[in-house]
Amino acid sequence: MNGAGALLATLAANGVNVVFANPGTSEMHFVAGLDDADVRAVLCLFEGVATGAADGYARVSGRPAATLLHLGPGLANGWANLHNARRAHSPVVNIVGDHATYHASLDAPLQSDIAAVASALEGWFTRSERADDVARDAAAAITAAVGPPGRVATLVLAADASWSEVQPGPAPLAAPPMAPGVDADALARCVRALGPRSAILLGGRLDATALKLAGQICAASGARLMMETFPAIVERGAGVVDPERIIYLSEFALHQFAEIDSLVLVGAPAPVGFFAYPDVASRLTRDDCEVITLVGPGGDVAGPLAALAAATGAAPIEVPVGEPPARPYGDLNAQSFATAVAATLPAGVVVADESNTSGVHLFGACRFAPRHRWMTLTGGAIGYGLPVAVGAAVASGTRVLALESDGSMLYTPQALWTMARERLDVTVVALANGRYAILDLERRRVGAVGADAVSERLFDLGDPRLDLAGLARSLGVTATTVTTAHELCDALERSYATSGPTVIEARLPVAF
Amino acid sequence: MNGAGALLATLAANGVNVVFANPGTSEMHFVAGLDDADVRAVLCLFEGVATGAADGYARVSGRPAATLLHLGPGLANGWANLHNARRAHSPVVNIVGDHATYHASLDAPLQSDIAAVASALEGWFTRSERADDVARDAAAAITAAVGPPGRVATLVLAADASWSEVQPGPAPLAAPPMAPGVDADALARCVRALGPRSAILLGGRLDATALKLAGQICAASGARLMMETFPAIVERGAGVVDPERIIYLSEFALHQFAEIDSLVLVGAPAPVGFFAYPDVASRLTRDDCEVITLVGPGGDVAGPLAALAAATGAAPIEVPVGEPPARPYGDLNAQSFATAVAATLPAGVVVADESNTSGVHLFGACRFAPRHRWMTLTGGAIGYGLPVAVGAAVASGTRVLALESDGSMLYTPQALWTMARERLDVTVVALANGRYAILDLERRRVGAVGADAVSERLFDLGDPRLDLAGLARSLGVTATTVTTAHELCDALERSYATSGPTVIEARLPVAF
Repeated sequence: MNGAGALLATLAANGVNVVFANPGTSEMHFVAGLDDADVRAVLCLFEGVATGAADGYARVSGRPAATLLHLGPGLANGWANLHNARRAHSPVVNIVGDHATYHASLDAPLQSDIAAVASALEGWFTRSERADDVARDAAAAITAAVGPPGRVATLVLAADASWSEVQPGPAPLAAPPMAPGVDADALARCVRALGPRSAILLGGRLDATALKLAGQICAASGARLMMETFPAIVERGAGVVDPERIIYLSEFALHQFAEIDSLVLVGAPAPVGFFAYPDVASRLTRDDCEVITLVGPGGDVAGPLAALAAATGAAPIEVPVGEPPARPYGDLNAQSFATAVAATLPAGVVVADESNTSGVHLFGACRFAPRHRWMTLTGGAIGYGLPVAVGAAVASGTRVLALESDGSMLYTPQALWTMARERLDVTVVALANGRYAILDLERRRVGAVGADAVSERLFDLGDPRLDLAGLARSLGVTATTVTTAHELCDALERSYATSGPTVIEARLPVAF
Repeated sequence: MNGAGALLATLAANGVNVVFANPGTSEMHFVAGLDDADVRAVLCLFEGVATGAADGYARVSGRPAATLLHLGPGLANGWANLHNARRAHSPVVNIVGDHATYHASLDAPLQSDIAAVASALEGWFTRSERADDVARDAAAAITAAVGPPGRVATLVLAADASWSEVQPGPAPLAAPPMAPGVDADALARCVRALGPRSAILLGGRLDATALKLAGQICAASGARLMMETFPAIVERGAGVVDPERIIYLSEFALHQFAEIDSLVLVGAPAPVGFFAYPDVASRLTRDDCEVITLVGPGGDVAGPLAALAAATGAAPIEVPVGEPPARPYGDLNAQSFATAVAATLPAGVVVADESNTSGVHLFGACRFAPRHRWMTLTGGAIGYGLPVAVGAAVASGTRVLALESDGSMLYTPQALWTMARERLDVTVVALANGRYAILDLERRRVGAVGADAVSERLFDLGDPRLDLAGLARSLGVTATTVTTAHELCDALERSYATSGPTVIEARLPVAF
């Protein structure tokens, strides 16, 4: 057995059975080892697809997948979606093949400072330079990735460590996830703080059970229940507690916190604006607001919420079931798009939302749809939706609905090919408004006035017009184009009833 | 005037009149400033297109373009092609917008360690945090980028430095390019060393004049004239001196250097294998070979070559003119593809070569084509060809021919849209063999044996088959598909006679 084989055996022994791969020469022994390993390799045509898929896999399953990347450029190409994974606290095991140890000093064309690129992911990093160290390092990487909090663990595998022989032996096991207890002092402070002018702010991975506990605590204490703008994954729909989401626009979000004297953080960071804007505060809470962290970002929220529920004497609550909206008719626009999605959504779907301005009404519209899960752009690095949908579909085996704006879709369209190749049950709605519409809004928000002439051209995706259905077909995915709400509903229902991926190009005007 | 305006004025005053842009919120004041600046903004739908375009612009013109990127993820998405630019010693001025200074400590979703990502480019870096510093920093960035050697200079522009007012004043000028003299000691050593068992190894940016000087020196001294495998840009064709190129496969390249006792480096690094392979030396020269650096990588080669020619008493030489090959007929394969390109190439074309295994016969076939320039994958980061073609076309105004293998094309296909939008005269031959064929070869070279079953699937791009012509059309570029050598010749000639971009999908079997 060689080092690559030891790595694969360690991954498999620890339940890391999927690798999203874009290999090159330095990874060939790893590829060869796949023949004998209980690890499924999913080929991606661009590294940002591989890393985003690992993020989606982790959000849905709670478990890490591996990536296989090729030296510094491979890691860099995957970096943006690893940044999103870092902000989602997704466990990811990055395998980055590198030159042989003795080749590194020669400054060959592909030589670069991989450690520097990885360091900006603020996760875990090591470099395996001896075959005998690889299995141990791989187990340490998995331990680090799983946390909690989940993080991106990057293992650089030198080519000679990969191809050199090792003594066969049992694969080392990663440490079980740490389960930190609930901080009694923080708990007591929370109990004291919760009341009519307080709120609980939830974030991270939120299932119906955790949401219900939080809802009970708030019902008992009179606190408001809030959620960060961009949680990693949250369960939603009829019968699920629905927290008040922080509005993306900090001009409005500041009002949400204006009456809050005490804020309890449960899996969310202290709320701040996504960007800074001239003459708008960056911190969303008042300066005199008491902020208590019960669980930090990426931590398990269920245990602490249960403890807090017990401490506050929270009683069971009724959660409204409601009804999804009726099917919309007429022109397609941001409102009818949202209604169409909500009216047709089957139970169990995982939504990857990168709909941006076109999705302004979406989250609200789906409030009473059948139970589903919702993923968001945690780190703000555009191009996450299609890759995360790939990983979510591999992890869950259930239907994934990717809602993707045209500008965002063009960062990582290669994900479509992997959907086709792996016959993944993904429905993509490609929202074609022909514009970087969010930038029209943001330009006004930062006060970059008088720029209409330039922005009219620099935010315009209409010359030439992107043919998103054609793009999908060129990558092997069945596609259709719709221009009315009614057609969108029909196309969605057809897609849900058909195995494999579909792209629905939805042409609509800019939302505002 | 605000900081962004001062930056734009400084760029324009120093002749940096093109910015390849993929902006976001933090760059909106820069975008607004474009209204009043003598700077052309070329929109790119993915940052790797913007950075590769800046590389191509610099290779062709010798002058820097700017990029406009959005925080850490934007820089990371552009990093791979900046790595290629670094290896080409292309001057590039990266502008990376960042959060306002007071927002950075709040760890907002898009916050990351941009300096760490930039540091791995081993160029120049600074962060402008005050509007009053921006113009000075921009001039310093241009000075650093131009060198020589050329390098990637990254200027991080904090949003508040961008939007705050500055005192209007004249834009500072960058220092003129340094023109280091020729090292007299190294020159004397070269004169002594050049002889029958010696060679000159050229690299970097090589025009016909420099090549002729080098040819004269070698004719006078009996030295061999060689060239690095992946020069930034080299002039070629009838009447141009044609150095012996180092073979990519180090197993063979070692033989090229077996009889060389003294090697003179002129703009090239000491030759090493692209990758390490078990039981194959990484250094291509013999351990006892004398290696003399007359000019390091990225340095000007013309002056030192002129000095060396004078010192060796080199006399004018006749350079063979030759004839391009006749038009090929029959099936399309690696040989007939190469002949078709050579038989139809008009004078003055700039070639961006990312043809990989399909291009094995290409460079040789074009030896006696009309005079042209040839660009290569300097840093080994795949996905350089289409973006570099964008920049080369913007810089030169002459026809660019991008030879692109299917696997490589899928890293940065978004470049096609920019070609269409800017009406660039680019002919793309998309070489569709349906396979990562280079990896079949590399797997055997590193001795990763017994992996046929896995590699058969993991290197296969045929399920589903990529429709490269359809991909091009979806991004607004006219496209055609050819399957014979004759059709390829016709399509090439039609494309050269038509303004704007064309994609020719050439279906052919794997080369070996």
